[in-house]
Amino acid sequence: MKLVTFTDATGAAPRVGVADDGTGEVRDVSELLPAGAGVLEVIEDWSTLGPVLAERAPSLAARPLDSVRLLAPIPRPRRNVFCVGKNYRAHVAEFGRSGYDRPDRSEDLPEHPVVFSKATTAVTGPFDDVLAHAGVTSELDYEAELAVIIGRGGRGISREAAFEHVWGYTIVDDVTARDLQRRHSQWLLGKSLDTHCPMGPYAVSADEIADVSALQVESSVNGEPRQSAPVKDLIFDIPELVATISAGITLEPGDVIATGTPAGVGIGFDPPRFLAPGDVVEISVTGLGRQRSRIV
Amino acid sequence: MKLVTFTDATGAAPRVGVADDGTGEVRDVSELLPAGAGVLEVIEDWSTLGPVLAERAPSLAARPLDSVRLLAPIPRPRRNVFCVGKNYRAHVAEFGRSGYDRPDRSEDLPEHPVVFSKATTAVTGPFDDVLAHAGVTSELDYEAELAVIIGRGGRGISREAAFEHVWGYTIVDDVTARDLQRRHSQWLLGKSLDTHCPMGPYAVSADEIADVSALQVESSVNGEPRQSAPVKDLIFDIPELVATISAGITLEPGDVIATGTPAGVGIGFDPPRFLAPGDVVEISVTGLGRQRSRIV
Repeated sequence: MKLVTFTDATGAAPRVGVADDGTGEVRDVSELLPAGAGVLEVIEDWSTLGPVLAERAPSLAARPLDSVRLLAPIPRPRRNVFCVGKNYRAHVAEFGRSGYDRPDRSEDLPEHPVVFSKATTAVTGPFDDVLAHAGVTSELDYEAELAVIIGRGGRGISREAAFEHVWGYTIVDDVTARDLQRRHSQWLLGKSLDTHCPMGPYAVSADEIADVSALQVESSVNGEPRQSAPVKDLIFDIPELVATISAGITLEPGDVIATGTPAGVGIGFDPPRFLAPGDVVEISVTGLGRQRSRIV
Repeated sequence: MKLVTFTDATGAAPRVGVADDGTGEVRDVSELLPAGAGVLEVIEDWSTLGPVLAERAPSLAARPLDSVRLLAPIPRPRRNVFCVGKNYRAHVAEFGRSGYDRPDRSEDLPEHPVVFSKATTAVTGPFDDVLAHAGVTSELDYEAELAVIIGRGGRGISREAAFEHVWGYTIVDDVTARDLQRRHSQWLLGKSLDTHCPMGPYAVSADEIADVSALQVESSVNGEPRQSAPVKDLIFDIPELVATISAGITLEPGDVIATGTPAGVGIGFDPPRFLAPGDVVEISVTGLGRQRSRIV
């Protein structure tokens, strides 16, 4: 099932929808949910609400997806988005060569997952504009990523049990201000500027994805292909990430884990190709749809 | 005003209280607040609720502070706690010498604030036990810190306007798993194990603090003094931290910014003196009370 959070042109409160990207339609399912429930609450109570939506959504009125404004499926996560750095081999090499991984500058593969976070206020919709933040950064970069959405929470989750805790998946652009990332050495600020976490368009439940490792993560800038790699190229796979993070941290329903970006980001070029106002970044992951962000 | 979040022995829902640490009493003020409001909501609507509490709390019944269980004043922040690393000169030196600041190992002062986050699930009460997480870490360390609580949110806050956005202060122990901090290079995991963010006892409104830079941050382990430094020793002061973080990130009411720890942490010793089950960490900041955590 593909869940969306959307508003219509009237500016009313966000609604929960079930999308069909085959027909290009969305069904407003809010009436099937407890009052005020958003996608987060649906994920949290998925064992009850999932079957209700599966049974009753198809009989609700459909409208064209392009007649609504899609927000991030989880517009306001309950805490920062977990993110993984340096998790595709070729990206580790391009990042090391670029000199931006201060003070490491190493092309060696990490021996353990590099985990940081993006502030909640960075989250924005899959078709919303991304702010250039002139005066704050002059080195804006994109990072196409598969993100995992946690369903059942827990601590000490084993590799073997990890997928039992995965509700599903979405797309995240881990937009990065490279100058801030380098300057502050810990990455939180460089990763968290407002609008620098486009998410969506869909929160896709895991049952729709037969083999997540086969999904292809792709990005383009102004129509020019930049990144393309299968999820199986992850250095630390999804079970490893869930086990590592949850070893001492209780994961919660609705937690988002962006799993890392493949080679082909702006600093991978020599000279670097940073984003500028007017540029359009498109990101797709097989089965998860496509997002499109204009830099302003 | 000193706000607390507390429960009584009956295990009822948390209440908001106004504490008087002179008399050692607390007054339950929940009846003066909108239904369900916690300390977060009080801070968010401080211009209205602050005067109500100031006027009407004194006439409410008082009970001994030691008859209630104090939770963290903000038991569940709306997002990760912002934290600052390497922000006292002598601590930068001890951290560099220790070799734990992989791969930097530098005793040079940072040129820009080092900002990272602690996950919300790490927050625990000021007298609660801190989990040793045996099997996950074997290098547990304490970090006494003054934390700022944001009142009015905003982006692009200037140094000059910074204190207009500070609601007040609390104490945070930025408990750290040094092995994880080093192993994962970004610090999120090493800083975020469950119970590794004791907070409180009080959220103290800024009007109680005449000169925050004069406050003394102190810690002891099993009664042995370990850390003691005035807030004026901060390399990057509170206005600088607020301006730096908010340059591109919208700060929100209730955001917590832990400002960094002075010299005297466990890795400052040679050999390092890590915490073990049974150890008791006590942390105080002038005017903000004292917390006491047992490692279990």
